Amino acid sequence: MQLTRFTDYALRVLMYLGGQADRLVTIREIAEKHGLSENHLMKIVHKLATRGYIETVRGKGGGMRLARRAEMISLGEVVRDTEENMDIAECFAADAQSCVLLPSCALRSVLIEARKSFLATLDLYALSDLIGRPGPSGNLGGEMTRGA
Amino acid sequence: MQLTRFTDYALRVLMYLGGQADRLVTIREIAEKHGLSENHLMKIVHKLATRGYIETVRGKGGGMRLARRAEMISLGEVVRDTEENMDIAECFAADAQSCVLLPSCALRSVLIEARKSFLATLDLYALSDLIGRPGPSGNLGGEMTRGA
Repeated sequence: MQLTRFTDYALRVLMYLGGQADRLVTIREIAEKHGLSENHLMKIVHKLATRGYIETVRGKGGGMRLARRAEMISLGEVVRDTEENMDIAECFAADAQSCVLLPSCALRSVLIEARKSFLATLDLYALSDLIGRPGPSGNLGGEMTRGA
Repeated sequence: MQLTRFTDYALRVLMYLGGQADRLVTIREIAEKHGLSENHLMKIVHKLATRGYIETVRGKGGGMRLARRAEMISLGEVVRDTEENMDIAECFAADAQSCVLLPSCALRSVLIEARKSFLATLDLYALSDLIGRPGPSGNLGGEMTRGA
């Protein structure tokens, strides 16, 4: 039961940018800070830009920044947008024919309900909750180290 | 965001056994019905037996059956027992040192809360809800085809 690294790193990119709201950040900077490949990050940044979470400025001195206020970026939305496969089990795939229980299986409905609960919890939080402001439950712990 | 095949198939084994409550079932039978490898199923059956979900009878005419009534097998419990890695993101691993945000990251708390919601939903259902009886929400749909 894991999110993909793509989603994991997308969240980290957004958190990093959220902590650097006053300046443009390069892919290289994030790659170096996080020890990630620039190539992998470029795909993530492209997706985040396409979905309107970040904006990029080309050319010398260019870079990227959040395209919306951190309060306006829902974690549930980010996970829905970046997680390529929300199929919890094999039988969720459109072309799944492998399970003999499929035509009448009730497990699928239960897993869909569980996934909905998972995402509904993430919907309670915004990016701003991860960078130093407590979320609705008020127990999110420490602040992100700005510039770290 | 996927459960492992191990968990997926463990649930299928339990559902199959739940539909055959009056007789012993062999690994071969399930392997053939589901098109799964006997070798993989043996590991799953071993885990389910160790955790007290099923009991096995050795020898000629032997096989396995549920060790508890299907009403007493919580889906949340099965998933917790069979899902080897409940780490939603890389930073959950005990040896994770790769993320520079780690010391003060609030994302982990949010993901833990979301995972809790996911499992709490599964805790609402028992195996019996998957084999022809409606669950608490009453909308679980069709019956499993017994003997299929």
